[in-house]
Amino acid sequence: MAWLPELEAATLASLPTAHSNPELARYYQLIRDYPERGGKRLRGQLVLLSAAAHGGDWQQALAVAAAVELFQNWVLIHDDIEDGSDERRGRPALHHLAGMPVAINVGDALHVYMWRLLHSDACLALPRWREVIREFEAMILRTAEGQHLDLNWVASGRFDVSETEYLTMVTLKTAYYTVIGPLRLGALCAGLTPDPRFDALGRHLGVAFQLRDDVLNLLPEVTTGKEFAGDLYEGKRTLILAHLLSCTDEAEKAAIIARLNQPRSDKRAEDVRFILSAINRHGSLAYAQRLAEAEAAQGLALLSELAPTLADSAAAAELTGLLKSLVRRLH
Amino acid sequence: MAWLPELEAATLASLPTAHSNPELARYYQLIRDYPERGGKRLRGQLVLLSAAAHGGDWQQALAVAAAVELFQNWVLIHDDIEDGSDERRGRPALHHLAGMPVAINVGDALHVYMWRLLHSDACLALPRWREVIREFEAMILRTAEGQHLDLNWVASGRFDVSETEYLTMVTLKTAYYTVIGPLRLGALCAGLTPDPRFDALGRHLGVAFQLRDDVLNLLPEVTTGKEFAGDLYEGKRTLILAHLLSCTDEAEKAAIIARLNQPRSDKRAEDVRFILSAINRHGSLAYAQRLAEAEAAQGLALLSELAPTLADSAAAAELTGLLKSLVRRLH
Repeated sequence: MAWLPELEAATLASLPTAHSNPELARYYQLIRDYPERGGKRLRGQLVLLSAAAHGGDWQQALAVAAAVELFQNWVLIHDDIEDGSDERRGRPALHHLAGMPVAINVGDALHVYMWRLLHSDACLALPRWREVIREFEAMILRTAEGQHLDLNWVASGRFDVSETEYLTMVTLKTAYYTVIGPLRLGALCAGLTPDPRFDALGRHLGVAFQLRDDVLNLLPEVTTGKEFAGDLYEGKRTLILAHLLSCTDEAEKAAIIARLNQPRSDKRAEDVRFILSAINRHGSLAYAQRLAEAEAAQGLALLSELAPTLADSAAAAELTGLLKSLVRRLH
Repeated sequence: MAWLPELEAATLASLPTAHSNPELARYYQLIRDYPERGGKRLRGQLVLLSAAAHGGDWQQALAVAAAVELFQNWVLIHDDIEDGSDERRGRPALHHLAGMPVAINVGDALHVYMWRLLHSDACLALPRWREVIREFEAMILRTAEGQHLDLNWVASGRFDVSETEYLTMVTLKTAYYTVIGPLRLGALCAGLTPDPRFDALGRHLGVAFQLRDDVLNLLPEVTTGKEFAGDLYEGKRTLILAHLLSCTDEAEKAAIIARLNQPRSDKRAEDVRFILSAINRHGSLAYAQRLAEAEAAQGLALLSELAPTLADSAAAAELTGLLKSLVRRLH
């Protein structure tokens, strides 16, 4: 894991530090806040391991991997505002520390620092730099489309979201930038055209990752760095909820939706306990967990076909290990 | 003004239109909403006229000029949320049409479409493409720093903002992307190194533009597309306010600050009338207008020195005309 400290260093080195104006020095600290909180840096690691597995030098992929990390961080700042989340990586969300207006602006600045990394000499030197840039654009635009569906369902009060619609949303919102994009970017950094089979593989593993994330959010004994049952407080549509609402009679459905629709500030712990109890009674958590396992199994089966075709078998084994840990995550 | 319809077409052509999923088709409409509202497209025009005045072909600068317009639009979406603005170009602000979470995400997507234009073949073909990109990064980062100061003064309840601090903020927040950046980008599109004197010229004219904007916002008979006295409803720090608070005794100062500090939803028309009456009594509007005229005169004097050094005198004359209209704007 020699790459992990280098990935962290490359990510933080791309951000501003000192400013003679104390208000702007504080602003630079806000820009560095989420990136300095750490996190697993899964997506950046995937870029590096994919580059190495494709026979490339992972160090040449460092700037691209760090840019993926910056993407994750500015998206989380804006996500936390959009979803009304209270916590991130075990600390208050940025808009709780700095106020919503300042936090939006900090996210925008971090977005520019991300592109600045992708325009750095190290990136411009990549033989497939143009394709890297196109991949990045497509990755962010897909993520924003998925995010729109997710937010719009909440904004428009839609609860009749089908399992298929949910899986489409999650593929756009999560699978692309969590797995598909990083695997493809690694191949491009190694100077190769990405194998199109990565798309299906990444879709299954990315969906499994998000489903597992939704399940973990409702397990009180798990420490994720996010608030327990935050998804219910925020009224998010999840597969768990889609399953639950397909099992209930009209009266129970109405009682659940009324509680989910409460504005976050009016939502009481007993509202959330009411929904959690229905989720357990109808086996919706177990259903989502089973689907997560099925998606993971399909993705890992494709991976076991693809991994032997990669140039560097040792790196391919590490990549496989990281992808397995991604879908079997315990926190 | 042959370039104006082409600028508009290039801006809108860079944005997505149809999608088979009706929710995503609606999302594309939201992305196009602010750009389709029109506006004066001053900054994009400045890029084109600066390129032509420097002896370049304005059509080669179209993608960069359109990218400046997209920048303006995504910044306005986020600005309107950050400031709690109600109107933009005579219509409700985007977050009033789509909700705050969706509007943040739409602004982020528009930000990516802006970079996509700057990565287009037309831009990559520019001999000084790398410098164009660096200029763009610097322009946005400076704007975000100015925006931070502006937002942070409101967030932290600071009212002891000096005239110098205000002018620093306005130079960062407005002058850079309104005048300095576009003039420099035009030179780069024409293949030339920007004359460093553009910086001082653009600072004076950009500050004059913002001061005039602040004055116009408090003239009830003027239609700006923004709400009359919106700055007072939003509690913005302006030079008008800095002057006012330097003229009042402690009791009047406290009465004004108490009204400005009211959350927007609690602010009544009579609170705003109270502040407006103090502004008129102390001559603060006239003071800001005089300073705007002095800044404009300094900028235009520098321009009259610089314009004759430009390669294309007809285009330089048009550029001068546009910059004059910028600082003498009546709406």
